[in-house]
Amino acid sequence: MSVGTHKVPGMSLHLGAVTVDCADPQGLARFWTAVLGVEVDADYGEYVFLTKPSEAAAGLGFQRVPEERAGKNRLHLDLMTDDRAAEVDRVVGLGAKEIGEHEVPGLAWTVLEDPEGNVFCIGQHEH
Amino acid sequence: MSVGTHKVPGMSLHLGAVTVDCADPQGLARFWTAVLGVEVDADYGEYVFLTKPSEAAAGLGFQRVPEERAGKNRLHLDLMTDDRAAEVDRVVGLGAKEIGEHEVPGLAWTVLEDPEGNVFCIGQHEH
Repeated sequence: MSVGTHKVPGMSLHLGAVTVDCADPQGLARFWTAVLGVEVDADYGEYVFLTKPSEAAAGLGFQRVPEERAGKNRLHLDLMTDDRAAEVDRVVGLGAKEIGEHEVPGLAWTVLEDPEGNVFCIGQHEH
Repeated sequence: MSVGTHKVPGMSLHLGAVTVDCADPQGLARFWTAVLGVEVDADYGEYVFLTKPSEAAAGLGFQRVPEERAGKNRLHLDLMTDDRAAEVDRVVGLGAKEIGEHEVPGLAWTVLEDPEGNVFCIGQHEH
């Protein structure tokens, strides 16, 4: 049995959150709460954590770090929607910057940057 | 009304996945499927996507990029568990490297690196 292709009995590990290093946790939290329709769950000054849309969903946290971003992020968030055009317009209105569009069979997505330049995507399945 | 502190009516955007830039998507997928107890959902060669433990959970994808990682990741994954010691031992056995431990009231976490040096945390709430 390969542990890579089967559920591991008793395994109890799940993705609880993604933490984003940033210069302005409160500012980035304002943007992302508006984007995702969630709220600030806890603001510790150096660290802000957002509420999750459901218990099984991964949350977002923002922690202040002194260093600036070095090049493209190695990890990025992929948001999904049923109305890509409307959601791209909405998040651009909130302060995102549109970078480009891509398409493969069954999926189209827009690449954007948040107010601190973190790349993220808004994708939509196409039928 | 502040859109940052209320649900946005009709808003239809959720975190579907986190994509990780890497040198070896298949290798990293083997590690992360074992860590999370999920399977490879689709392997497109340059891009590997894992199954999600539930519909509401965020998935993980791995895409091959030519460039190496430049310094610490700006975004990192926070995994949660009810048995941190056992899970840290388990993922170290799978190829993770333990970096350090931290604690604040109510939460303790271990910092690790995956086989390509991407930092992630395993946390546990303390009562």
